[in-house]
Amino acid sequence: MSGNALLADWGTSNLRLWLVDEAGTVLAHRASTQGADGLGPDGFAAVLQGHLQAMDMPVSPTPLPVVICGMAGARQGWREAGYVHVPATPNACLVQAVTVPAEGLDVRILPGLAQQAPQPSDVMRGEETQLIGLLATSPSLTGTVCLPGTHSKWVRTSHGQIQQFHTAMTGELFALLSRDSVLRHVIAGETRFAPEDPAFGMGLETSFTQPGTLPLTLFQIRAAGLLAGQTGASAAARLSGLLIGAELIAALDGLPETEEVALVAAGALAPLYAYAFTQAKRRFCLLDANTLTLAGLLAAARHLFPAVFKD
Amino acid sequence: MSGNALLADWGTSNLRLWLVDEAGTVLAHRASTQGADGLGPDGFAAVLQGHLQAMDMPVSPTPLPVVICGMAGARQGWREAGYVHVPATPNACLVQAVTVPAEGLDVRILPGLAQQAPQPSDVMRGEETQLIGLLATSPSLTGTVCLPGTHSKWVRTSHGQIQQFHTAMTGELFALLSRDSVLRHVIAGETRFAPEDPAFGMGLETSFTQPGTLPLTLFQIRAAGLLAGQTGASAAARLSGLLIGAELIAALDGLPETEEVALVAAGALAPLYAYAFTQAKRRFCLLDANTLTLAGLLAAARHLFPAVFKD
Repeated sequence: MSGNALLADWGTSNLRLWLVDEAGTVLAHRASTQGADGLGPDGFAAVLQGHLQAMDMPVSPTPLPVVICGMAGARQGWREAGYVHVPATPNACLVQAVTVPAEGLDVRILPGLAQQAPQPSDVMRGEETQLIGLLATSPSLTGTVCLPGTHSKWVRTSHGQIQQFHTAMTGELFALLSRDSVLRHVIAGETRFAPEDPAFGMGLETSFTQPGTLPLTLFQIRAAGLLAGQTGASAAARLSGLLIGAELIAALDGLPETEEVALVAAGALAPLYAYAFTQAKRRFCLLDANTLTLAGLLAAARHLFPAVFKD
Repeated sequence: MSGNALLADWGTSNLRLWLVDEAGTVLAHRASTQGADGLGPDGFAAVLQGHLQAMDMPVSPTPLPVVICGMAGARQGWREAGYVHVPATPNACLVQAVTVPAEGLDVRILPGLAQQAPQPSDVMRGEETQLIGLLATSPSLTGTVCLPGTHSKWVRTSHGQIQQFHTAMTGELFALLSRDSVLRHVIAGETRFAPEDPAFGMGLETSFTQPGTLPLTLFQIRAAGLLAGQTGASAAARLSGLLIGAELIAALDGLPETEEVALVAAGALAPLYAYAFTQAKRRFCLLDANTLTLAGLLAAARHLFPAVFKD
């Protein structure tokens, strides 16, 4: 198989690759657990070479264009790609891509986004590429974007510019509380549930109607387990509802109810957040996070390697 | 040494013992890490016997009165002592003490407190004894009591009766977030700080002035570490300020500012919460938690073994 560029979303614990041709069409897609976390600076190129061999890419005299987003560009990654400070346009991100020498490859790693005073300090790395993908199709977007995850990002864009953002540690809090806190006794490892689980809606409702009470409502899950036998997936659903509800009510504060939020999600989080937005009576438009990552990487590749791609 | 009764605060990871005479005077105090968590149902009596031997207590033909509070009365403890449902008086707790057979000992384990609908589900086990101690000296107390800890308890009493309570998992959240979350990279194990650390006050202020934003402010600690070099104890202080601030603002919601809160605390938490109450411009009275535990156990012993004690 012969491609014209390799696109990579290199996260902490996962790597996803797309081989594309000169029209930007995906020729092959690969996913692995070779995350940036376990690799020394010397390991990254070897991983890419291995995947190219597995895809039977012929060795070419000209280096293969490679565009990477995510934790490969963190301080502990392949090469630190720094941060672009908001407010920033997608182009401002792309021009700060870092070039990394590697045999047979022309590698560019995209920077993350940072926010500093007078706004609260915040950073993102990886999600900026989804935003670049979103703004590639809606170049003058003004609105709020929600990107749920281990660290959910809430982003405000104005006329196609990324203005400001907040991070909610919702996914990480759910993992810590369900696995390592006193709540583990009632959840007992059963963390999978459907959005329609009444306990999820109950958790959402608690956080929606009693904003600011999260510090006092988490332990109620433990008590309900002891006193009312609410255990397992039902307890996990309630925890998730409390956390996602508290995230939504805090992040949507001040936003007009008539405004539609772009919800950029994939996997199990997509239906959970969609349900939460619906329960909060908030308008939203669900966009697939994986599609936007690919779109962002492709927009970056077109910008960084204009000679490779046909319009 | 010859005592008339043995009082025990038997927590998950610690045991504290007081040997008292017929006037209630403490003859000896012992503390150990023989918490209820590591003991099977058969291990508790042996631990007590060991401590009595170490105190040179002579073997008497009449069994020694023993009063125990805490996790020894949990389902996984020595003997389940159940819960008394609020509203409840201290006496209602004492009459439900559970008798446990043990050679040479007359053991009574105090029940915990539970709350159910229409109030939110909640439980406590151990703190009820501090409340019994507090109400022993203020039998008609009407007010709010704050007992900070791994699981902080906020209790409303009325005319000497325990009316309702809430639990905040503040201490456990601090431990999980500082040790196991992404914030560990900036805190790096340096979790000790003074209340006067400006970052603690900054965390409090954020939670006081922006109630409900905790989901969005925790990650700012990570970002400030990356962008502004706020790391170590300063980052831990900020995390603690955010969490304690969010706990206070939620728990004090609706309470008149003129009302004095009884703050029942010990160790490092006492000055932290005292500082937080001061910063919140809330009136409070600091009471020593260990003193009240002993007072509660002694009040229970006098009630359960009236023949042993002189007035």
